Amino acid sequence: MKVNTNQTDVRTAILDAAERSLAKKGYKKMTIDDLASEVGIGKGSVYLHFESKEDIALSHIDRIVERLHKKLLKIARSNAASDLKLHQMLVSRVLHRLDSISGYSKSLSEVLSAIRPALFQRRIGYFTDEAEIFGAVIDRGKADGVFLTKMSTPDIASSLIIATNSLLPMNLSPLELGSRKDVERRVSKIADLLIAGVCSE
Amino acid sequence: MKVNTNQTDVRTAILDAAERSLAKKGYKKMTIDDLASEVGIGKGSVYLHFESKEDIALSHIDRIVERLHKKLLKIARSNAASDLKLHQMLVSRVLHRLDSISGYSKSLSEVLSAIRPALFQRRIGYFTDEAEIFGAVIDRGKADGVFLTKMSTPDIASSLIIATNSLLPMNLSPLELGSRKDVERRVSKIADLLIAGVCSE
Repeated sequence: MKVNTNQTDVRTAILDAAERSLAKKGYKKMTIDDLASEVGIGKGSVYLHFESKEDIALSHIDRIVERLHKKLLKIARSNAASDLKLHQMLVSRVLHRLDSISGYSKSLSEVLSAIRPALFQRRIGYFTDEAEIFGAVIDRGKADGVFLTKMSTPDIASSLIIATNSLLPMNLSPLELGSRKDVERRVSKIADLLIAGVCSE
Repeated sequence: MKVNTNQTDVRTAILDAAERSLAKKGYKKMTIDDLASEVGIGKGSVYLHFESKEDIALSHIDRIVERLHKKLLKIARSNAASDLKLHQMLVSRVLHRLDSISGYSKSLSEVLSAIRPALFQRRIGYFTDEAEIFGAVIDRGKADGVFLTKMSTPDIASSLIIATNSLLPMNLSPLELGSRKDVERRVSKIADLLIAGVCSE
């Protein structure tokens, strides 16, 4: 096993190992010892980067969301029409998360039942950041005369987010998690209605 | 303790006792013995009506949903305009459930973690029934020329349902469960956008 010396690399390597371990074993059976030996570092070194096993699992989810936010920003900054951007962003926020956990759709409910309360806390920050990215696109669409609704930008942004939240992995059954095409179709239809609503007076 | 002889009354009394017990003790500490003694019947009599403790908890939720469906049908059959009906129905499907578990918003996460897999199964039926009630109102609104969208009625109905599902108790954090006003505001805004979308071409 190659020993990483760069600290960012070590952190990344631990999260990569956690991702594999969560998929293979689930949360309860994942141990700090396993992660340390897989990365080729001592157990103590893991604790330099993370407070606990829960912290590792949550940081793993943080990383999924950080990557999503980069993707959303890229769409927001593209040259597409505002309504199209919103549509792409809504589909992305659902499918990116679904794809990120596709390796462990079976163990997900076990992982979630262990970290759900902490994740509820974390979500507030995730959604606030997402609402900001959506808000910029909504403001632009209003300025361009594409979005005619009189609803405030923060209300629109949070409505779009909440209206697609039931399709995020933590709210789906194992069966639903397995049917990407179906989830894509559902979020796309909801996005169609919401955006038509945003465009209308 | 009064002994009920009518079988429907006994079933109702067991569910009432379960509701109180889930609120007070949570799922793990609720026992069939407690329920039997509270209703004033033998333990064996409880098993004439329910297969297991899980069956009782799920039947308790079934009852909440049955009452909701009656409420939705009443709105659907009222003389209000179709768009107003949809709005009222969307707000009702969220707030009825929230109000029904307001007595045990603190123990809810414990109850849910015990019955979540079975509840995921059950939800499919709940939502199918709801989609049917929504579908009738949507068809009517289309026939009346109020709903101009080209989206199919089943797609609209399921979109409305999925878009408000993240506000149902099983997907809310304990903090969110406690803020009825906030939940009402959120579902109302989402309904505004969705229905504007349904009304537009």
